[in-house]
This record gives sequence, C-alpha cells and structure tokens, in this order.
Amino acid sequence: MVEKTEDAPVGAVPEDANQHCPGTEAEQAGKASACEGCPNQQICATAPKGPDPDLVAIEERMRTVKHKILVLSGKGGVGKSTFAAQLSFALAGLDKQIGLLDIDICGPSIPKMLGLEGQEIHQSNLGWSPVYVEDNLGVMSIGFMLPDPDEAVIWRGPRKNGLIKQFVKDVDWGDLDYLVVDAPPGTSDEHISIMQYLKASNVDGAIIVTTPQEVSLIDVRKEINFCKKVGIKVLGVVENMSELRQQLESAEFKSVDAQGEEQDVTNEVLDVLKSHAPHLLSSFVATSVFYGGAGGAEKMCKQIKVPFLGRIPLDPKLGKAADEGRSCFGDRDCSASAAALRTVINRILSVTEKGAGVSV
Amino acid sequence: MVEKTEDAPVGAVPEDANQHCPGTEAEQAGKASACEGCPNQQICATAPKGPDPDLVAIEERMRTVKHKILVLSGKGGVGKSTFAAQLSFALAGLDKQIGLLDIDICGPSIPKMLGLEGQEIHQSNLGWSPVYVEDNLGVMSIGFMLPDPDEAVIWRGPRKNGLIKQFVKDVDWGDLDYLVVDAPPGTSDEHISIMQYLKASNVDGAIIVTTPQEVSLIDVRKEINFCKKVGIKVLGVVENMSELRQQLESAEFKSVDAQGEEQDVTNEVLDVLKSHAPHLLSSFVATSVFYGGAGGAEKMCKQIKVPFLGRIPLDPKLGKAADEGRSCFGDRDCSASAAALRTVINRILSVTEKGAGVSV
Repeated sequence: MVEKTEDAPVGAVPEDANQHCPGTEAEQAGKASACEGCPNQQICATAPKGPDPDLVAIEERMRTVKHKILVLSGKGGVGKSTFAAQLSFALAGLDKQIGLLDIDICGPSIPKMLGLEGQEIHQSNLGWSPVYVEDNLGVMSIGFMLPDPDEAVIWRGPRKNGLIKQFVKDVDWGDLDYLVVDAPPGTSDEHISIMQYLKASNVDGAIIVTTPQEVSLIDVRKEINFCKKVGIKVLGVVENMSELRQQLESAEFKSVDAQGEEQDVTNEVLDVLKSHAPHLLSSFVATSVFYGGAGGAEKMCKQIKVPFLGRIPLDPKLGKAADEGRSCFGDRDCSASAAALRTVINRILSVTEKGAGVSV
Repeated sequence: MVEKTEDAPVGAVPEDANQHCPGTEAEQAGKASACEGCPNQQICATAPKGPDPDLVAIEERMRTVKHKILVLSGKGGVGKSTFAAQLSFALAGLDKQIGLLDIDICGPSIPKMLGLEGQEIHQSNLGWSPVYVEDNLGVMSIGFMLPDPDEAVIWRGPRKNGLIKQFVKDVDWGDLDYLVVDAPPGTSDEHISIMQYLKASNVDGAIIVTTPQEVSLIDVRKEINFCKKVGIKVLGVVENMSELRQQLESAEFKSVDAQGEEQDVTNEVLDVLKSHAPHLLSSFVATSVFYGGAGGAEKMCKQIKVPFLGRIPLDPKLGKAADEGRSCFGDRDCSASAAALRTVINRILSVTEKGAGVSV
C-alpha cells in the first residue's frame, strides 16, 4: 500500500495569515494533524491571534526607509551573509544611508563580518540604536546582545519572532536609503515573520544566493516558491562560489612519494615555469569546486524565468575579508571577487533605482 | 546610556522543558518579553503543556535502536548532510542495520544525497516504512512527502516539531544498529524537539561538523554549549573542507591579457611541465579555501576540551558523489576524501562500539 502521508505540505499561503484557526492549540501540543483541512494550516501556527497592533508601529517606523531588500538562500553556507555584508559596504560606499539587519537568531554572523564583534546596543528615547560601522552604515543583530559570543541561543520560533519584531519596530533606524535584511536559510519562522511584519511597508524584493551545486539549487527553487507565495518579488539569483580562483604563484603543489609521504613540490613547479615560461607565472588556477553539471543557477533562472544576477568566484581572500570584518572593495587581494560583486550589485541598483544611473 | 536590552538570552536550560509557564500564550502573540524572569523562558514557548504521552510511545519505538547519533552544525553549508550520508553508507558497508533520519524540514538534502529522489513513503500496520537504499539502510525525510520537489515547506516551529515527533514515533524503523539523525543548522525548534523526544532513549552523542572558517567556528562553540545544556555528549568535531585538493592534470590555468580578456593557458602550463619535469604532472594543487588562520577546529577543540575527529579535504568529487546520491567509498575518484572520512568514522566507532575492533 502506497499512500501520501497526511502531513504532506499543502499549497498556497492564505491572504490573512493572522487569522486564528482552531488547530493552533493542538499544534502547540505537537498534534500537527489537528489543522488538517484548514486553509491556514501552513503558516497560522503560533501566528498572532487577531490583527496585531504592532504592525501599525512597524509601518510607522519603516516609513523613513526608502528601499528594503531581503537576502535569502535555500541552503546554508552559500555565502549569504558575506554577500549581505559586502552589498551593505558597497551601498554605503555610494554615500547612501544603509541599515543591515541580521535576523539569523541562532547563528548571527553579521557582527563579525562587519568588524563589530564585542559591540553592544545603545538605547535612547527613540529606541534601540544600531551599531555603526561608519556614520552611514548601521547594523542590528542578536550578536550584540549575547553576554558571551559562544552562548547558544536556544529559542523556539515564537521567541525568535518576538525579537525580529522588535528589530523592525523598536530600532531607531532613522532615514535610510536601504535596509538590507540577512535571513537564515530556509522558509520557516524568521521568513514568514519578517514578511508579515514588513507586508505593509513595500519591500523591494529578495535576492537569493546559491552555489552551483544541485543540492543548493533544489533549495533555491523552494525559496523562489516561498517568495511567490508570500508575494515578494525576486530581484534575482546570485551564484556564489562558482569557481575557485587562485594566483598560480600563491598555490601549493604537493606530490605523494612511493612511501605514501607527502612532498611539497611548489618550488619545483614554480622554478620550471620561471625558467621556461615566465609569462605563465601571472596566470591563475581555476577550479570548479562545486559541481554544477546541470548548468548551475543561470540555466535554472532561465527555466523558471527569474533574473540571474551573476556569478561570484570562490575567493579565499573574500572569505578572509569576511572573517576579518572588512570590505573587499579597495582590497587589492580581493580583485577577482570584488569585480564580480560590483557587476551583481550594479544589476540590483538598476532595478531598485530604476535607471537613475547609480553604480558602484 | 548603554544598557543590555531586556531580550538578551539567558543562561541554562531548565531541567523540565515541558513545564508550562504563563508566558507561553503571550509569546504566541509575539510579546516575547512576557516571559521575562521565567526560568523556562528560553525553551518553553510552544512546548507541549504537561507530560506528553507520546514520549512513552517514542521510548517504546526506540527500544530496538542500539545507537543514536546526531549530526549537527552551527552554520549551514559546512557539509553536514554529506557527512551524515557518507557515515550512513560507511556503517551500512559494515553490514550494520542503519536508519538515517533527516529532520531538516525546510531544506531536506538527504533524499538526493542517498539517490532516493522521487521515492515515496509506504505505510503498513507497523507505521510509516522508511525508504530503503539497500536492505540495511533505511531513510526518512520530508523530501519523500512533497508532491513537487520545488515545493517550499513554509512551516513554523510547532508544525515542524509535530512531524519530527512522527518520525521518531510512527516510523517502523525496526531493529537498528545505528540511527543517524541529520539536523538543520542552529539551535532552535528542531534541535530542542529531537532532544526532548529522544531524552529517555540514550542518545550516544552528537558529531559537530564545521569548516575551518572563524565564522563557522563561532557557531560550533554555540552548538557545543547547546549540547552541554541539553545534556548530550559531544562525540567530536569534524573539520570539513579543510583544503582543496585537485590533480594538477585536471586543473585549469587561465591568464588575463592586456585587453582584460581571459585566456586559457592550461595546455601551455602542462606542456612546459611535460617537457621539463614530467614527474610533477602527478602532483596535486592544494588550496586553503576557507581561511583558518586562527588554527581551525583542532585548536578550538583543544581549548574547549572536546574530541577532534579529523579533517576532510574539500573534494569536488565528493560533492559530485553527494549530488548523484552515491557512496564515495569504492569510488576511485574520491580517494582523497574517502580516506579522510574513514579515519573520522573509525574514531566514532571506537567510541560507540567501545573497542570492539570494528572499523571501516
């Protein structure tokens, strides 16, 4: 006997996700099937019951924010936070006023990637103040609230949602050109909540980051379906870690001898090239780290008709800049990834600024 | 005025996470601070109210499962699912009876990584039947329940928890030597729930997968703290993607000419080596893809006194095996990563089998 289980997820997200359905209490108790047949079952569990007065306060707070961009990914570890950080650095470099909001509650990477580790949130009568990298780049993350950076944040959904709401309601973002929101991977509490909270505030759209791997692309398709269902525009897909590029001169070459011992032959390789073809020393080694045999993100974008924003190579120097909380722009070591990032960001600007000729 | 916000997460997880606290209802409505001061506030939200009769049924079901291992990571995309899949292949190769449970509800990668895409779950009077790769390797994942693989699973915590409970309560796992549980990244609903559900069933411990990057190690420390708080033993930490290794002969070499155009110089490089130092052609190019300047996972493990299980190189061929749902053992192309995986898995076996001399 083959049959679909009762718990297979169902179709569209209802218009009014705030409406209370009788299944909620039962779901609380782990009885997921109590919501069966309810059109709201997908997203109503733990949603606020009845209209939420806080939504008005959020709309008020967001009125001074011109553009709102979500950075999403289906799978984790595809470089989403790195992209969100470098996007914010790039936009701030255009003298725009930028806010960067990290809604990854259990694994906040943004403070480190902006060089703000150990900073704390200040409070004024206008609300919580973001932590500023520069005058025009303010950051908010749960990372600033942890007494110890190793502290685990063991929170279920409702508590995460409560903090995310405070981030959009109680933070004194001030006048912003862009609010960039870095989300954790997936399509669960954080994503449903941020969309509900910003529903009335004109979100420009979402940028989805992926690697060329098929396992990542599967999750991108899920994320795009999420965007369609909650009614957020997909600004485009960025393929990250497309190819590893490394200067030949900084690569290591190793061989394994008859005894199985590893030998470093880097100098030998470089010497041969130096003697016989010195012009090749300035070349770089390119490796497809993640197997994108099925055509990668570009092909997928064509198939499902969403914009492809470009490829960013896997650049160990970009990873280092992220680990050290630095912008990769203006860092000569990052030239390969910085140029690719610029192309992608200019494509985003051409949509959000509607041909105003702004570019990084 | 500098002050910690009221919402900074607090310390230890209470003994009895099932106890209902009055804040739960308020938290439902997004008022996270209503739990302030309650010792249970970190994890009680949405927890079942009162003792859960299903826990008895789970304990009964798990009685035929000898060993239970969780595969965790702080950050996503570190190769956790790939590791869980290859661990299961390796243990099944020892003629052990293996179950692999995927509790990543929003981004299930396990069906693809085991070559089981498009399979469906069968049901019998004993419960849901896992999908079998071979007679001794059964797999359960929400991926088998989706009518369309691109379908987004837009579920908040309680609904995810409900399904995870069904996976340990209603699945006819049968007699198992090992149940390997692949969790999503983080320390939230899925992690709290699986620990609650398996609390009475002797979990052997958790394996934590990371990359050498500092941003990943930060999240590993959080994950280890989570394990300490919920009382699960850390079997050890695996450093994945430690170094990229590629045969020199299969690498691509490129240079950029004066006009900024890219030229493929692979043949030129190989020809020079062939003519002047042919023995170097069998060497490989090694690259530290993720910057592990701070000493990586091994140093961290020493500092915080948890076992370090070993390093696995970033091997594009392993990624390809994962994308194609194959075991990397017995695949000559994967030799670099397979050897490293074997070392790590043998260290795990030496703990769980307590010196019974079992090894892959």
